[in-house]
Amino acid sequence: MKVLFLNGPNLNLLGTRQPEIYGDTTLADIEAAVRKQAEEKKVEIDFRQSNMEGELVTWIQEAVGTADAIVLNAGGYTHNSVAIRDAIASGNVPVIEIHLSHIHAREEFRQHSIIASVCKGQICGFGLGSYLLGLEASVTLK
Amino acid sequence: MKVLFLNGPNLNLLGTRQPEIYGDTTLADIEAAVRKQAEEKKVEIDFRQSNMEGELVTWIQEAVGTADAIVLNAGGYTHNSVAIRDAIASGNVPVIEIHLSHIHAREEFRQHSIIASVCKGQICGFGLGSYLLGLEASVTLK
Amino acid sequence: MKVLFLNGPNLNLLGTRQPEIYGDTTLADIEAAVRKQAEEKKVEIDFRQSNMEGELVTWIQEAVGTADAIVLNAGGYTHNSVAIRDAIASGNVPVIEIHLSHIHAREEFRQHSIIASVCKGQICGFGLGSYLLGLEASVTLK
Amino acid sequence: MKVLFLNGPNLNLLGTRQPEIYGDTTLADIEAAVRKQAEEKKVEIDFRQSNMEGELVTWIQEAVGTADAIVLNAGGYTHNSVAIRDAIASGNVPVIEIHLSHIHAREEFRQHSIIASVCKGQICGFGLGSYLLGLEASVTLK
Amino acid sequence: MKVLFLNGPNLNLLGTRQPEIYGDTTLADIEAAVRKQAEEKKVEIDFRQSNMEGELVTWIQEAVGTADAIVLNAGGYTHNSVAIRDAIASGNVPVIEIHLSHIHAREEFRQHSIIASVCKGQICGFGLGSYLLGLEASVTLK
Amino acid sequence: MKVLFLNGPNLNLLGTRQPEIYGDTTLADIEAAVRKQAEEKKVEIDFRQSNMEGELVTWIQEAVGTADAIVLNAGGYTHNSVAIRDAIASGNVPVIEIHLSHIHAREEFRQHSIIASVCKGQICGFGLGSYLLGLEASVTLK
Amino acid sequence: MKVLFLNGPNLNLLGTRQPEIYGDTTLADIEAAVRKQAEEKKVEIDFRQSNMEGELVTWIQEAVGTADAIVLNAGGYTHNSVAIRDAIASGNVPVIEIHLSHIHAREEFRQHSIIASVCKGQICGFGLGSYLLGLEASVTLK
Amino acid sequence: MKVLFLNGPNLNLLGTRQPEIYGDTTLADIEAAVRKQAEEKKVEIDFRQSNMEGELVTWIQEAVGTADAIVLNAGGYTHNSVAIRDAIASGNVPVIEIHLSHIHAREEFRQHSIIASVCKGQICGFGLGSYLLGLEASVTLK
Amino acid sequence: MKVLFLNGPNLNLLGTRQPEIYGDTTLADIEAAVRKQAEEKKVEIDFRQSNMEGELVTWIQEAVGTADAIVLNAGGYTHNSVAIRDAIASGNVPVIEIHLSHIHAREEFRQHSIIASVCKGQICGFGLGSYLLGLEASVTLK
Amino acid sequence: MKVLFLNGPNLNLLGTRQPEIYGDTTLADIEAAVRKQAEEKKVEIDFRQSNMEGELVTWIQEAVGTADAIVLNAGGYTHNSVAIRDAIASGNVPVIEIHLSHIHAREEFRQHSIIASVCKGQICGFGLGSYLLGLEASVTLK
Amino acid sequence: MKVLFLNGPNLNLLGTRQPEIYGDTTLADIEAAVRKQAEEKKVEIDFRQSNMEGELVTWIQEAVGTADAIVLNAGGYTHNSVAIRDAIASGNVPVIEIHLSHIHAREEFRQHSIIASVCKGQICGFGLGSYLLGLEASVTLK
Amino acid sequence: MKVLFLNGPNLNLLGTRQPEIYGDTTLADIEAAVRKQAEEKKVEIDFRQSNMEGELVTWIQEAVGTADAIVLNAGGYTHNSVAIRDAIASGNVPVIEIHLSHIHAREEFRQHSIIASVCKGQICGFGLGSYLLGLEASVTLK
Repeated sequence: MKVLFLNGPNLNLLGTRQPEIYGDTTLADIEAAVRKQAEEKKVEIDFRQSNMEGELVTWIQEAVGTADAIVLNAGGYTHNSVAIRDAIASGNVPVIEIHLSHIHAREEFRQHSIIASVCKGQICGFGLGSYLLGLEASVTLK
Repeated sequence: MKVLFLNGPNLNLLGTRQPEIYGDTTLADIEAAVRKQAEEKKVEIDFRQSNMEGELVTWIQEAVGTADAIVLNAGGYTHNSVAIRDAIASGNVPVIEIHLSHIHAREEFRQHSIIASVCKGQICGFGLGSYLLGLEASVTLK
Repeated sequence: MKVLFLNGPNLNLLGTRQPEIYGDTTLADIEAAVRKQAEEKKVEIDFRQSNMEGELVTWIQEAVGTADAIVLNAGGYTHNSVAIRDAIASGNVPVIEIHLSHIHAREEFRQHSIIASVCKGQICGFGLGSYLLGLEASVTLK
Repeated sequence: MKVLFLNGPNLNLLGTRQPEIYGDTTLADIEAAVRKQAEEKKVEIDFRQSNMEGELVTWIQEAVGTADAIVLNAGGYTHNSVAIRDAIASGNVPVIEIHLSHIHAREEFRQHSIIASVCKGQICGFGLGSYLLGLEASVTLK
Repeated sequence: MKVLFLNGPNLNLLGTRQPEIYGDTTLADIEAAVRKQAEEKKVEIDFRQSNMEGELVTWIQEAVGTADAIVLNAGGYTHNSVAIRDAIASGNVPVIEIHLSHIHAREEFRQHSIIASVCKGQICGFGLGSYLLGLEASVTLK
Repeated sequence: MKVLFLNGPNLNLLGTRQPEIYGDTTLADIEAAVRKQAEEKKVEIDFRQSNMEGELVTWIQEAVGTADAIVLNAGGYTHNSVAIRDAIASGNVPVIEIHLSHIHAREEFRQHSIIASVCKGQICGFGLGSYLLGLEASVTLK
Repeated sequence: MKVLFLNGPNLNLLGTRQPEIYGDTTLADIEAAVRKQAEEKKVEIDFRQSNMEGELVTWIQEAVGTADAIVLNAGGYTHNSVAIRDAIASGNVPVIEIHLSHIHAREEFRQHSIIASVCKGQICGFGLGSYLLGLEASVTLK
Repeated sequence: MKVLFLNGPNLNLLGTRQPEIYGDTTLADIEAAVRKQAEEKKVEIDFRQSNMEGELVTWIQEAVGTADAIVLNAGGYTHNSVAIRDAIASGNVPVIEIHLSHIHAREEFRQHSIIASVCKGQICGFGLGSYLLGLEASVTLK
Repeated sequence: MKVLFLNGPNLNLLGTRQPEIYGDTTLADIEAAVRKQAEEKKVEIDFRQSNMEGELVTWIQEAVGTADAIVLNAGGYTHNSVAIRDAIASGNVPVIEIHLSHIHAREEFRQHSIIASVCKGQICGFGLGSYLLGLEASVTLK
Repeated sequence: MKVLFLNGPNLNLLGTRQPEIYGDTTLADIEAAVRKQAEEKKVEIDFRQSNMEGELVTWIQEAVGTADAIVLNAGGYTHNSVAIRDAIASGNVPVIEIHLSHIHAREEFRQHSIIASVCKGQICGFGLGSYLLGLEASVTLK
Repeated sequence: MKVLFLNGPNLNLLGTRQPEIYGDTTLADIEAAVRKQAEEKKVEIDFRQSNMEGELVTWIQEAVGTADAIVLNAGGYTHNSVAIRDAIASGNVPVIEIHLSHIHAREEFRQHSIIASVCKGQICGFGLGSYLLGLEASVTLK
Repeated sequence: MKVLFLNGPNLNLLGTRQPEIYGDTTLADIEAAVRKQAEEKKVEIDFRQSNMEGELVTWIQEAVGTADAIVLNAGGYTHNSVAIRDAIASGNVPVIEIHLSHIHAREEFRQHSIIASVCKGQICGFGLGSYLLGLEASVTLK
């Protein structure tokens, strides 16, 4: 089994970016934790980050036939990218939407996810834990 | 460690209630699965359901000092119960909000949770899996 | 055939409550008129009132297998009870929504019924007549 | 006693028009059923249909002094015709608003009736039954 | 000089229609008063009423080349008729919008006139006086 | 008979202020025209202008017992002055609201008059003519 | 093959109506151009105009069984006629909505078409060309 | 004279509940202070708390004939309980709405009270003082 | 101790202004009642009224260092004066907002107070009593 | 003559993407059909697709001086790309906006095109036909 | 060259007013800094403050012919004064709108400036620097 | 000291792009003027433009540690790019938002800047001058 982890804009800054909201864990720390848990569960992981909306669209398109699930933290594109939404809807790979912070408890513009209705489910608010629960959800629970 | 699972109105109907949305798993099936996984993790479980808004408020109040976390599926009260919201905010027990269905992909009035901003996080869309991930979140990830 | 008449909060006050809107007929008067017409039509009647949202939810749940139709005047819960709505949607007993006054001609918050879209139909504005038409609708017209 | 049944635009198409919503009963079938029930109740019936907003306005105006009640299915004019609304408010003939389908369970623009607040009551969702209940309401219950 | 007075739906009922709002002056009374004042000012008058939106559109179209001004009380069509608005905009005859009652002090849906922005001015709230002021405005003040 | 003409902020600039909207007539020109017509009709005129909201409030208050009508061009205070509205409602002097330009055909924030519903009527769009019609309305038509 | 071209209110004024928006082509010019192109494609044309909403409703109803497609420029009724919308939805003749001007680039109230969602497609902004493209769409492309 | 003090959901938690907002005074402290002041004024006090919407409705209903005034802190039900609103409107006991915190200075959903328009007045923001002022208002000032 | 009572526009008209809403008590009556109660409590009173927004701003500014509390009935400026709001926020004198009528039970534009969130609390609906409760609140309860 | 066809995000998936909405025609099929028709009309075609908003912006910029018209299917960027809108407005090449599906009959967020008001016209709902009509519009009709 | 600096309500409190937002610089400090920089640039300065809306209107009116530019910090009147807006639009003196704090990063009601669209530009968020940049803009950059 | 000037989409077209709004100054002209003024002030300048949202995000990220301030004209991304907003919030380099035109005086969708609340200040409406003031603000005034 193979799970694709996609990270959107500014997630490469984790650890230095607004630590009062996002903590001091880096994206590398998260990747390491995800890989460790994935190994225990015999799951292959592909872990990527991009600031480019179009590149994320392309990666989601390419997942068809090459991944069994996508765990997607679309960052700032969560709220306005019809293009990413359409890419998810166009494929048949189940997508699990995750967020580090509790988006429903933040600014109003962060509370609406335009991609939610084409994803399988949503997990948010658990920091690094959102990634591990996303893995759990995509692997064990499907 | 002790985790309190609270279920709101109509969840006692699971299995017969709109199976095209909620599937045919009953609340007893869910409780059994939760208990099985909880035993493996050495966690004590208290699992309840009520149709009464006030009773849910009281249970959340009583959790202070008796439970380490609450996994809450508030059902129809999710969207309009300021009373449940205030009960959560009044205590210091972390609450994990879960939903069987993907509330952000359903009717507009189901997409806003009035309790979200006082909970630790939100998990929705995974059916029975939302409960297991909720247990996982409250136990392992805290 | 059996029809369940359910009355929500404050309907026990009929006759004294705002007579300029609701008239001076009491709930007992209404029950008597409904029972009289039901006898003529050989229909069994169960007629109840509660101020508790959760009790109404439970009664609607229990109607499955015991009643052929529900005539529901949900009173103040008409406008915001997702729990009652979900209870109606969860069962297979047809529900006819009635109101004594013409809710669409009153305050704006009374003009939207959150339960309407899961009911079979709506009758409002005929006072006691709304109950008799509700009986007519559930019995003769189904 | 005389009751005027007025039907708005496209109701002449009943039976062929969107049968998944409106069924296969024709307007002639409805008129026949209404006439049959009216005869039993010794009520004179006048039953008309028009696609013209202005013609409906004129008919409502002419009802003053010639009819005891109007049962009105204004069709598509229900939602935006201030002219029909004013015609109703200008006369003293009680008007009962009916709809075949459950307008409160359909598209949002169908959920608001601009004529409701000048009518005596509203009955919707019972198909042909809405007409019979409208007759019942205007005759027996007034 | 020639001024065309056009009256929309239900204005033929003036005098009997909601006298608490519109008074007991009939449309014939108004026409007489307008004609009397017009004679003094040597103005030719054409005074019409229709319940039909399309007929009003046609009359406004025909005014081009035959009238110097239109005084228009569009009644219920004031608030939603794009067709009347387009007819006004299409010609070069100045149109003065009048209303018997003070539309800005009534129901919210009466406070917005879709034709206002293509008219020369608006006069409302003076009953029969609105017609006389309309004549005054079109004749003396232009 | 005595009529009080009150002019709000910036009307002292007429003639130089945005002539493409307001023309090149000055406030003195308007006053002269109003006085001329008032003399013919044996009406006493008081004609004032102020940029101060509070001064306009005071003048409206003082009109009680000293004026038979007020013709009010409240300028920019038309749209947000609850104080002026309350002053009008507090007295028993009829107020006729006028505007030089057609406020319903301009920016959206100019289309709502907060004072309209406590005035007797509204006249707008006729430039200097709005003043003369206001005089006409207050004198002849009352 | 037969295509019905229906034109709504004020389109009879083309050529004289607001030429800065609609150009100086008359409706007769358009009909001629459409007929010429239709002949080349061996298509029979029926070309009509009406200012009456109800007449347009009737024509759309009568198209069932007599026309293969309707090219509809509903003019001002585009934005608020539920009756025309229902007439389209009631039949099985495909309707192509066209507009001379680019409605999405004009006043806000012109940007929403209430009939769009029951039409096959929409073409707007090409002047006379919108009619020719509408013919093309109904004939060649179906 | 007798005054009924009713407290809604979560007010039993006062003192421990969000002390940064509500302070560390308990409900018992408040009751003691109210009783002390009531004794001085020779007023009989009934002081209750419930988490149940329906129980509050019932208490308000029962006050008719047994209490001279109600001081009501409806807590979270303030903002959405049509049932409590209807109970107040149904009786003739004057109700004074109070709040510990300044609801108009908090989250937007707390700023609208659905019960306000059927209460005699509103006092908020004075903590324990709101109760004493409520007593003062109901006793001295009526 | 010294308390400053500030009254906004039109409050000088009390007693004659809309007595069906505000009663027949004059502002002088209110001042007398306030002074009488203040003497009993050994509080110095300064009682003023102005129709001028800017004068109220200045008085609030001058209260710093000269008054211990302000009881403010801002009248029509309550709803839109950012300047008064900023004046309150700029000082450190606690301000108690009062209203004679129950603003939350009146027109919608009166239900929102732009100054509420910078005041200590709000008291409304008790007529003259609102002033006495305001004094009570500022003196005893602080 | 040269026409530039630009396709936005996810259009490369056509044929596999949600065939119930978009059919099973691929983008290559469309290009072939467009090229075939263009040859008949002696028009040179440039046909591109990109998932990148910025790349589309650049292509639109580069069209100035190298293309006579652009046929643009902006896909998901249609609804929120101010950058593409500005690119269109900055050049002088006429742009024809097309869509495969009928965007006005789909989700609400798809019904508003932010680029519409800077394009020459809009064609939507005809599948592959939208492209051919777009070619027709740009070539024949300009 | 002469530049008029106008300061609206409460700006006289600078230095003591909410220093966490506005800092401890006084208006006199600002005036001194502005005068110093103006001298270097050989610009004459007139620097005023008023709490009165009408006085600001008058000053803006008087600037015509006596000043080359106005730097305006309208304070709380920024958001609702149509009168100040009209005064600016009425003259031909360019106005530069400035704010000490970053109004677009504060409460929602502060984010909309009703005067912005009649000013030349806007500078906000730089404290005292906003004044110096305003001088720079009016002098050097015009 | 080093200041980074970032320009968003379509700014490379300056001089040819809508000169009636943006003037005929090119981006190279602006860069030259900025460099000239920067030299006088001994400031190092980095001046870039990109049409790609992701590239702008990356440049903002890379400014941490390499630049003392950013002057940002985000063009069309100003209004909807959560990604750019997050990039600014993630770093500690102060950002000054500038615009050539007065965005608050243009289309409504241009009046809201999603990045404003994470920038230090905003300068708009001064054309090339906005850049020079931005430099001034970042250098002198910080």
